[in-house]
Amino acid sequence: MGKITAVSPLAPAAFPELPVIDGVTFAAAQAGVKYQGRVDVMLARLVPGTTMAGVFTRSATRSAPVLDCQAKIGLDGATGAAILVNSGNSNAFTGRNGVASVQAITKAVSEQIGLPQDRIFTSSTGVIGEPLPHDRIIAKIAELEGAQTATGIADAARAIMTTDTFPKGATATATINGKTVKIAGIAKGSGMIAPDMATMLVYIFTDAKVERGLLQSMLSELTDSTFNCITVDSDTSTSDTLLLAATGASGVEVTEAKGAFRDALNTVMLDLAHQVVRDGEGASKFVTIEITGAASDADAKVHGMAIANSPLIKTAIAGEDPNWGRVVMAIGKSGALADRDRLSIWFGDILVADKGWRNPDYKEDQGANYMKGEYLKIRVDLGLGSGQCTVWTCDLTHGYISINADYRS
Amino acid sequence: MGKITAVSPLAPAAFPELPVIDGVTFAAAQAGVKYQGRVDVMLARLVPGTTMAGVFTRSATRSAPVLDCQAKIGLDGATGAAILVNSGNSNAFTGRNGVASVQAITKAVSEQIGLPQDRIFTSSTGVIGEPLPHDRIIAKIAELEGAQTATGIADAARAIMTTDTFPKGATATATINGKTVKIAGIAKGSGMIAPDMATMLVYIFTDAKVERGLLQSMLSELTDSTFNCITVDSDTSTSDTLLLAATGASGVEVTEAKGAFRDALNTVMLDLAHQVVRDGEGASKFVTIEITGAASDADAKVHGMAIANSPLIKTAIAGEDPNWGRVVMAIGKSGALADRDRLSIWFGDILVADKGWRNPDYKEDQGANYMKGEYLKIRVDLGLGSGQCTVWTCDLTHGYISINADYRS
Repeated sequence: MGKITAVSPLAPAAFPELPVIDGVTFAAAQAGVKYQGRVDVMLARLVPGTTMAGVFTRSATRSAPVLDCQAKIGLDGATGAAILVNSGNSNAFTGRNGVASVQAITKAVSEQIGLPQDRIFTSSTGVIGEPLPHDRIIAKIAELEGAQTATGIADAARAIMTTDTFPKGATATATINGKTVKIAGIAKGSGMIAPDMATMLVYIFTDAKVERGLLQSMLSELTDSTFNCITVDSDTSTSDTLLLAATGASGVEVTEAKGAFRDALNTVMLDLAHQVVRDGEGASKFVTIEITGAASDADAKVHGMAIANSPLIKTAIAGEDPNWGRVVMAIGKSGALADRDRLSIWFGDILVADKGWRNPDYKEDQGANYMKGEYLKIRVDLGLGSGQCTVWTCDLTHGYISINADYRS
Repeated sequence: MGKITAVSPLAPAAFPELPVIDGVTFAAAQAGVKYQGRVDVMLARLVPGTTMAGVFTRSATRSAPVLDCQAKIGLDGATGAAILVNSGNSNAFTGRNGVASVQAITKAVSEQIGLPQDRIFTSSTGVIGEPLPHDRIIAKIAELEGAQTATGIADAARAIMTTDTFPKGATATATINGKTVKIAGIAKGSGMIAPDMATMLVYIFTDAKVERGLLQSMLSELTDSTFNCITVDSDTSTSDTLLLAATGASGVEVTEAKGAFRDALNTVMLDLAHQVVRDGEGASKFVTIEITGAASDADAKVHGMAIANSPLIKTAIAGEDPNWGRVVMAIGKSGALADRDRLSIWFGDILVADKGWRNPDYKEDQGANYMKGEYLKIRVDLGLGSGQCTVWTCDLTHGYISINADYRS
């Protein structure tokens, strides 16, 4: 872990009470992969009949466990499944040895719990380019198998943390034909967070029964407007993995991509995505960026991410400076369509720039006062069309520098 | 100016001795646009027969002076020309008032020195979105006209500074058919510096005689491998302007886009580009990133800029951490072609990663020792083809945060 151990000021008051999801059990252990004195490996077991869906980093240098998961996620399997995750070492850029480590771990889990190897999914998160000491993980598999409990999800959330300052969990329920299904998820991530990928480790579980293709299409669609709309530092991990498992243990079947289940899943995904931003390395402000009036939704996202990733805007926010000129700069550089003389900008509800010119009624004091808040909204209307997008980010502070200038030391 | 006034540790020992360029004179004055107690406006006069070329920001929200320069730069003019630049206010995102300010200033200069208004080029740099108090500039034009001197270029370099910690100048000569021509240039820029644009204010003067079309084509070509290959923070200004004026006063004509003149021009442009990086806000290290073996030169530049703009790499450099895993991450996320198992990485001459795997002979101490230097080189070979590119950047330090969290205060 880095040297910064204070919990983010934007952290939730407490880890949420997550319900038991029938059909899945958890355990965590101290394998000492890198960190000492804390849990760093978790195993989740899923009952036969579970369907799985996944979204993964599109990095060209993605890690061995990601490639392994991708090869397996599209397979149907009636046998149940397991997910094993370690923190401290990402097993990325480890060449053939990395593949061998994944093989060794999945084989060991397979033998321990009696499932086919192609139903064992693994993730690794931490330092890149160091050999994974997989023997330390394998030595804990029997213990992880023996300690399985339906209530172990909070420990699992802690085991997957790296520079995170708090464990991340979220839950929601959906009522389908009068019956309730439950969803609970956990996530890790606070740096190397950027759009267009799953961008972190996330594991979501539900007791609903959902056919694999439908589960995957819902997950992919909702990823676009949740995890792919957040950014901490514009950097993209080689290891990002989002797995969704539907155990079917409730006996309640979801048969359409719209409705209560989708909405509940969206709630959990958005909550976890926001928690990742709230734990952004060094973050002191949570910023919502809302783009409207763009030529298209795609253009709106390009503009939103240009703002969210601009170091000059993120440092201005850290300094509580209502520097809307830098918002103009980011819109101008984004590459998406913009017309300076149709552009309007709000900080919260305060109109600061109105169609290409400073709002004459705007007083700098208003903006400066608004910027003192912890939860800020910047809205930009392009005045060109109906394209829109909302993205989320945090500020760029001395804390980010401190954490990342010596993460490995 | 921001609150950080210490000179960059990467600054040259002194401002270079710039030669007189026959055909151009300079003066600087204190107009009090924003800064007090320092020169903040400069006027350069160019003799009849001068040809001009320019490169400008491609920002969609570019400033009124940039739009005005772009409209004029392609015109032939036998009358001579003038360049007026102010610092402290960029006259960007100022709508119709911004256009009116440019009109007022260029008209006043035109009347004062007796040149057509379409031969008066202006630039403004500083805060975005504030009305330009152009009357303060106009009030100084007679003084600027009266104080013109052939040796005033160093004062001009100081007048255009904003968050710069040192004035930037460079010079070179070329021998053409046994006769010498001189080139001298000045630049400002230390934040909001990113590729694919001219990205700062630069003014270069030569006494060579060069036809306008040839001058423009050389300038555009050399911009691609100099100013467009540097980045401080990935942000792109609305005001960036690069003007090159050839007075012809030496009587020596340049007739081809290759050879000694082009080489000397390249020397001046690269020197100024490097000085901008060396004055990068908060910079403590100057970093050369050399990409070889890419599928194409364009891909090499994408990879190079992904590394140069990565906050995680820039903070690792600040922390003197040889964190080559983050280089792998940046290559992976860049979007250009890469094959993890062909990728090799050097820090200086130290091979740290060899075709997708940590070099077994590499010792962390070697890398850590190398990172203590002020001038660092990261080389990546993709192992795919012959595409190559070199880009330059600086590290990301607490200083960048300090400067930008309260630039306007």
